Amino acid sequence: MRDLEEIKDEIKNLIEAKNVRELRNLTEDMNDADLADILEGLEPEQSVILFRMLGRDMAAEVFAHLNPDTKEALVSQLTAPEIGGIVDELFLDDAADLVEELPADVVKRVLESASPETRRGINQLLQYQEDSAGSIMTTEYISLRPDMNVEESFRHIREVGMDKETLYTCYVTDPKGILIGVVTVRTMLLSQYADKIADIMTDTNIISVNTNDDREKVTELFQKYDFMAIPVVDSQNHLVGIVTVDDAMEVLEEESTEDFHKMAAILPIDEPYLSMGVVELAKKRIIWLMVLMISATLSGQIITHYQSVFAALPALIAAIPMLMDTGGNAGSQSSTLVIRGIAVGELKIFDALKVLSKEIRVSLMVGGGLAVVNFLYKYAMSGDLLLSLTVGISLFATVIFAQTIGGMLPLLAKACGFDPALMAAPIVTTIVDAGSLTMYFMVASKVMSIGA
Amino acid sequence: MRDLEEIKDEIKNLIEAKNVRELRNLTEDMNDADLADILEGLEPEQSVILFRMLGRDMAAEVFAHLNPDTKEALVSQLTAPEIGGIVDELFLDDAADLVEELPADVVKRVLESASPETRRGINQLLQYQEDSAGSIMTTEYISLRPDMNVEESFRHIREVGMDKETLYTCYVTDPKGILIGVVTVRTMLLSQYADKIADIMTDTNIISVNTNDDREKVTELFQKYDFMAIPVVDSQNHLVGIVTVDDAMEVLEEESTEDFHKMAAILPIDEPYLSMGVVELAKKRIIWLMVLMISATLSGQIITHYQSVFAALPALIAAIPMLMDTGGNAGSQSSTLVIRGIAVGELKIFDALKVLSKEIRVSLMVGGGLAVVNFLYKYAMSGDLLLSLTVGISLFATVIFAQTIGGMLPLLAKACGFDPALMAAPIVTTIVDAGSLTMYFMVASKVMSIGA
Repeated sequence: MRDLEEIKDEIKNLIEAKNVRELRNLTEDMNDADLADILEGLEPEQSVILFRMLGRDMAAEVFAHLNPDTKEALVSQLTAPEIGGIVDELFLDDAADLVEELPADVVKRVLESASPETRRGINQLLQYQEDSAGSIMTTEYISLRPDMNVEESFRHIREVGMDKETLYTCYVTDPKGILIGVVTVRTMLLSQYADKIADIMTDTNIISVNTNDDREKVTELFQKYDFMAIPVVDSQNHLVGIVTVDDAMEVLEEESTEDFHKMAAILPIDEPYLSMGVVELAKKRIIWLMVLMISATLSGQIITHYQSVFAALPALIAAIPMLMDTGGNAGSQSSTLVIRGIAVGELKIFDALKVLSKEIRVSLMVGGGLAVVNFLYKYAMSGDLLLSLTVGISLFATVIFAQTIGGMLPLLAKACGFDPALMAAPIVTTIVDAGSLTMYFMVASKVMSIGA
Repeated sequence: MRDLEEIKDEIKNLIEAKNVRELRNLTEDMNDADLADILEGLEPEQSVILFRMLGRDMAAEVFAHLNPDTKEALVSQLTAPEIGGIVDELFLDDAADLVEELPADVVKRVLESASPETRRGINQLLQYQEDSAGSIMTTEYISLRPDMNVEESFRHIREVGMDKETLYTCYVTDPKGILIGVVTVRTMLLSQYADKIADIMTDTNIISVNTNDDREKVTELFQKYDFMAIPVVDSQNHLVGIVTVDDAMEVLEEESTEDFHKMAAILPIDEPYLSMGVVELAKKRIIWLMVLMISATLSGQIITHYQSVFAALPALIAAIPMLMDTGGNAGSQSSTLVIRGIAVGELKIFDALKVLSKEIRVSLMVGGGLAVVNFLYKYAMSGDLLLSLTVGISLFATVIFAQTIGGMLPLLAKACGFDPALMAAPIVTTIVDAGSLTMYFMVASKVMSIGA
């Protein structure tokens, strides 16, 4: 097997040499995703040459894989009939994504070039709310009637299958379009040709989602049931579309990315890092930083309040960064474990007491271990027993406070209907800082008055 | 459709009433994942009664869905022939997982109960390194010969398909077992019954992975190519197994979880939070906290070094928490964006200059915005122009430093062959703290000497 980079260089050379025949030979058996990769790396003029050479089917499949920027560049160089041809070949869910990704003027051109039928299909899909099951479904599925037999079903699949996003799971509907059963090609292949669909289909406990359900529910169902596709129904149980496993996998990755961003105090971003504008990126970041900066002045006020304590013993100040950092890190460990546990469905709100008990016990051990090491280190360095004791005790209390708060806040957020991922490191750190500084100065006053 | 909770209650009642007939009726058409859910919620004695009532096929499928703890409890109550029956019915990859999850004494019992053939298969799978493609593959796939036609292939699938993990993608091998082509049931259904497999199969650019490839490579291929399954070959290109899309989806989620944990300075955990022991959990957390705690003493030394500066102006100390927190948060925004960008394949090492330029421009805007607000707020509160100016300028410099470091460190780690996820919030925060405190005191000395 040859390297993709080699093939890319060869394609570039062939385009420059205008050797269409060889180019066609070379690309004929290639995979759509690989061709899309290669196309991304070409100059705009070269990419149009390569793109025009592909068959209509392949062109649509390659197009669906491209980045929004490349799509836009390509659309601007193609004629209206060419664009129409591609959009009509695209799966409707990919066509609808296109409309959402591209700038308004390009979208106008795309929609004008498409057939009325495609346009209607796209518009229908666009009605569904962002992040709903309806917004990620496709309306191109195979539906069967209960009185067909396996042989007739296979014949039907042969006739209409070409344009369907999956043909491995077929849906059985009654004359009103109500979903009454599901049958897989697997089941059909393992049955007799004369068997009736009604007898081999699953018709109880059909797993389906509503168009308005959150798309996260769809990925949860895929993870639970290992399906290839899940049917989407309206409120009257009419079948309106399906979500396929490859789209669910994409959603799963997007949802994880969203959680990573939220947990780092960034507003949701759904564009690749490199294609985002600087101003846009700055806006996504500054909001939370501003809120957290203002909240952090609370910790400053605590320091001001206890000014007399560290005026008496300036060496106390040197331990502040270590206490704050360790508190922040300890808290973020707990909040991350719990947030992720909730996200993958391992933790529920009613587990709160178990989490609380576990976090207290774990933090006693972790805090104890850190405090002892810190005390010994500090004492060896400074020889100041009271100072070392003050820092050690405060560290112990900080870790317990941080991990308990870190573990409980995401569950509390969930119980209040907020997104647990918002209760991540930054917010926990801000709260823990205020708590740990207060404890530190209180411990310091106590210990020092004993020492005095 | 009835609620799962209702069915669960009904099942409990039927078990108590020993109404086997109704129980069988009720569970007959249920989905394996749902039955597993219900089983998890029953008392051990009840769950054995329900489990024994399931057909052998169904029992194996339900078993594969259970938590390790429930599996262990169930195994301890079943007879050796019962265990053997289930393990023999499991897909080999699930059986191998079982051996990895259960305690050694339970594993011994499981392996002794299985058939020699199953035992051989499990042992073969267990040879592959953790996190390799070999470790997540199954050896139960359908292989065809190139000279079969579509009709013969369907007949073959009907005969052997029942025990194969997927039958939608079939693999064509030569007599030596070397992978020479791939053909999907979709292609076969859309071809004529008399068409030869050799003529309709894909035989160029076959996408496959090696047994030793990292499992992340497998999920990347699934995301790129939208396949249902990917073949796994040995170094001589012999077909040895396949990975199916549902297993890839599980890996994708596990890899995300691993990144979340690493980024929160937790050592890798592959058990659910609630089943982990307290000591184990404490160990996973204390290592990094200890390292970071010791590194944070550097910041303490910086404070001690500049003691004269804040002795002259104690009000400076109050701004330290705000500076440290904002620096940490700003740095973690950048590192998270870049780490996630690398993980999903959007960012490569050679994008480093683009990232650097973007981070500098974004941080100029973000830092500028925060600094102005902070200066105005501080000045309004304290009326101290020089102090407010010192804090504002330091904040500006801190944000630029934090976001540049946060953006570059993960790429540097990647370039050096380390995991970028390790360069997340905790490490960035520790570095940024030291840098921002140094800048703060330097700015303070400068500004105050102007003021003096």
